[in-house]
Amino acid sequence: MRVEVVNTGTELLLGKVINTHVAWFGNELFKLGVRIQRQTTIPDGDEIRTVLKEAFPRCDVIIITGGLGPTNDDVTREVVADMLNRELQLDEAILRNIQQMFVSRGLKPNRSNDRQAMVPEGGVVLDNPNGTAPGLYIPATEQSPHLFLLPGPPRELKPMWTNLVYPKIAEMPRPETAPELFRNFRIYGAGESSIAGFLEPKLDGLEGLELGYCARLGEVDVRLIGSKSAVEEASSSLREEYQRKIVTESEDSIARVVIDLLAERNQTVATAESCTGGLIASTITDESGSSDVFHRGYVTYSNEAKSALLGVAPEIIEANGAVSAETVQAMVEGCLENSGADHAVAVSGVAGPTGGTDEKPVGTVYVGVASRNGETFVKKYFWPSERIAFKTRVCRLVLDLLRQRILGFPLE
Amino acid sequence: MRVEVVNTGTELLLGKVINTHVAWFGNELFKLGVRIQRQTTIPDGDEIRTVLKEAFPRCDVIIITGGLGPTNDDVTREVVADMLNRELQLDEAILRNIQQMFVSRGLKPNRSNDRQAMVPEGGVVLDNPNGTAPGLYIPATEQSPHLFLLPGPPRELKPMWTNLVYPKIAEMPRPETAPELFRNFRIYGAGESSIAGFLEPKLDGLEGLELGYCARLGEVDVRLIGSKSAVEEASSSLREEYQRKIVTESEDSIARVVIDLLAERNQTVATAESCTGGLIASTITDESGSSDVFHRGYVTYSNEAKSALLGVAPEIIEANGAVSAETVQAMVEGCLENSGADHAVAVSGVAGPTGGTDEKPVGTVYVGVASRNGETFVKKYFWPSERIAFKTRVCRLVLDLLRQRILGFPLE
Repeated sequence: MRVEVVNTGTELLLGKVINTHVAWFGNELFKLGVRIQRQTTIPDGDEIRTVLKEAFPRCDVIIITGGLGPTNDDVTREVVADMLNRELQLDEAILRNIQQMFVSRGLKPNRSNDRQAMVPEGGVVLDNPNGTAPGLYIPATEQSPHLFLLPGPPRELKPMWTNLVYPKIAEMPRPETAPELFRNFRIYGAGESSIAGFLEPKLDGLEGLELGYCARLGEVDVRLIGSKSAVEEASSSLREEYQRKIVTESEDSIARVVIDLLAERNQTVATAESCTGGLIASTITDESGSSDVFHRGYVTYSNEAKSALLGVAPEIIEANGAVSAETVQAMVEGCLENSGADHAVAVSGVAGPTGGTDEKPVGTVYVGVASRNGETFVKKYFWPSERIAFKTRVCRLVLDLLRQRILGFPLE
Repeated sequence: MRVEVVNTGTELLLGKVINTHVAWFGNELFKLGVRIQRQTTIPDGDEIRTVLKEAFPRCDVIIITGGLGPTNDDVTREVVADMLNRELQLDEAILRNIQQMFVSRGLKPNRSNDRQAMVPEGGVVLDNPNGTAPGLYIPATEQSPHLFLLPGPPRELKPMWTNLVYPKIAEMPRPETAPELFRNFRIYGAGESSIAGFLEPKLDGLEGLELGYCARLGEVDVRLIGSKSAVEEASSSLREEYQRKIVTESEDSIARVVIDLLAERNQTVATAESCTGGLIASTITDESGSSDVFHRGYVTYSNEAKSALLGVAPEIIEANGAVSAETVQAMVEGCLENSGADHAVAVSGVAGPTGGTDEKPVGTVYVGVASRNGETFVKKYFWPSERIAFKTRVCRLVLDLLRQRILGFPLE
């Protein structure tokens, strides 16, 4: 089964936007034992005709993103209809949806959006609850492969994929070698190459298993794909070696895992953030159900705020600096006390690019965890990196320390 | 001048790694008035032969990344030499460099790296001080375009590009029609289709201008590319029509714009967040220099926290609910008072997916802005959408209201 992806968007080739679709599709298709054989990015406009003409004869499925918008350079729908000699017909239901969406947002429907309600004969409409442009599925013919025309914005694309496209591709006849089991291990506190160095010799000679890795800031996913017995054998090895470092055997975020652990125990957490500036609170509240376990957070960027909101004695900051074990200990204990939560986490560090000193260079960070039942833990880390990467990594670390604390592991 | 990019790497198509090369090349080439016409990703292995065979006749320059490594599936060098009927010759200087690099890292040189010292006849070696594989430049012939074979890892690729590739492409004859000016307008409070509906009739018949749009949650970028006079004419139309809705004529984030406006005026802001859960604070602190203008934020997810930290009278919440104009007014005024900042912003809403009622369905949000000098502004919005999209959109809205307040526009 040969699948290709075609991404349209001048902004992708101008470097204004990074293409994250390919990685998304790659991961998703892999679950079905299917690989992307080629991916092509082209500018908005008529170049799509050339690319599709080349791709039609060699493909079983082509996934096309972008070019379904309301403006003149959005031509995917029209080019595909023309290539297949299909009439474009106005779909009244889509048109009503579009107009409804405008009205519900207090806007006047715009005639230029009407084009988005045009459907090629024989095309299947893929509903888009998150935007005006529906997707389209055009089943294969003798001259053309299965075509999926999908919107560019990820928030529109991803739900449409999950609900409507993935199930369709899953139904298509695929090679018999399709894997039987897929399992993802999300591991914190171990690097990709060290995990590979452990796992690969262990599994040498084990048939029917494919390994995949994906390393992000502070977290590594290990994907096991293959026969049930092979996946189970590899899973056992991973569980035995990594134990508490395994955050989940799913693709749940660390925040989701922490929230579920807290909710099961009827516990709460509060946050006190300096260098992460609210990211930890925001990451927790990205997850549904967070209000049960997270009631408040303090963003104490200035020294004065650390004292006013968390009761950190100004002398502690004066004597040790805002980025110090002493200050973070006072922050996290003040946060626990003032919030009344069962657990508190706190961070103070130098995110950069400025503000570093010889003693505390950019990338220095202290993190703390305090609990109603348990000792306060404070530790220094050093991760010099770009500002947002630094914040992300520290946020994940803190949530992972909290996870270990909730589970009763001694922190170290 | 037609330029294409070919990225090889199975990991890119499996979704293990996001392709950041394309955006890098796109931005770099644009400085030379050159666009990438097509970009293709293919797996490691022999597929590169098919792709290059197709691309040779239509291209002036092909930039190829990856496939120069030491393992069996790294075949770029060999396939290119074979297609051009060039012998591969061992380059002793490269070989010594590779061996030296291993020794300096305390490792034993590995025979599998010797392949990396092979150079096709007529190829120009591009030194790689950051890795073992040098790049290669093969000048155009009658049968083939200029070829650049570059290593995949960004830390090796980028310096090589800057020092050796970019200068070579800059010397090549380029089209006289290269665009003279690029300008990006970032607009809040107007949709992509309405902007297009305004701009396109205005510019009808205007030669030498290319328009591009990129709509994200609550913000639209309008790209103008073309001759100086055409870009200036379109810029004037946009400025006249959208005035205060233009956040920036650059690619700065709304947070960057707000921070700079505050810093110029020596003012500060504090945040009080319920449904955005810290995202506004985190977005502000994503930017360097935020500590000058942002000293503290309150994440008041529970009613109790709203009362304890912002002084919201429990009776107000009881009478009107946490998601109400009255509560948000009390939140934002309490935030201004308690923080001592010059401006305060506050939000309370129903992010969903649960927690909606008939009266206040998921997507309902109240936002408030208060200032030391200025009336308190509170307004209701309704944006039913997925949780993180909702948070993002509300965050951008709040920052934009703050921007308008700082600039002295009456809020409405």
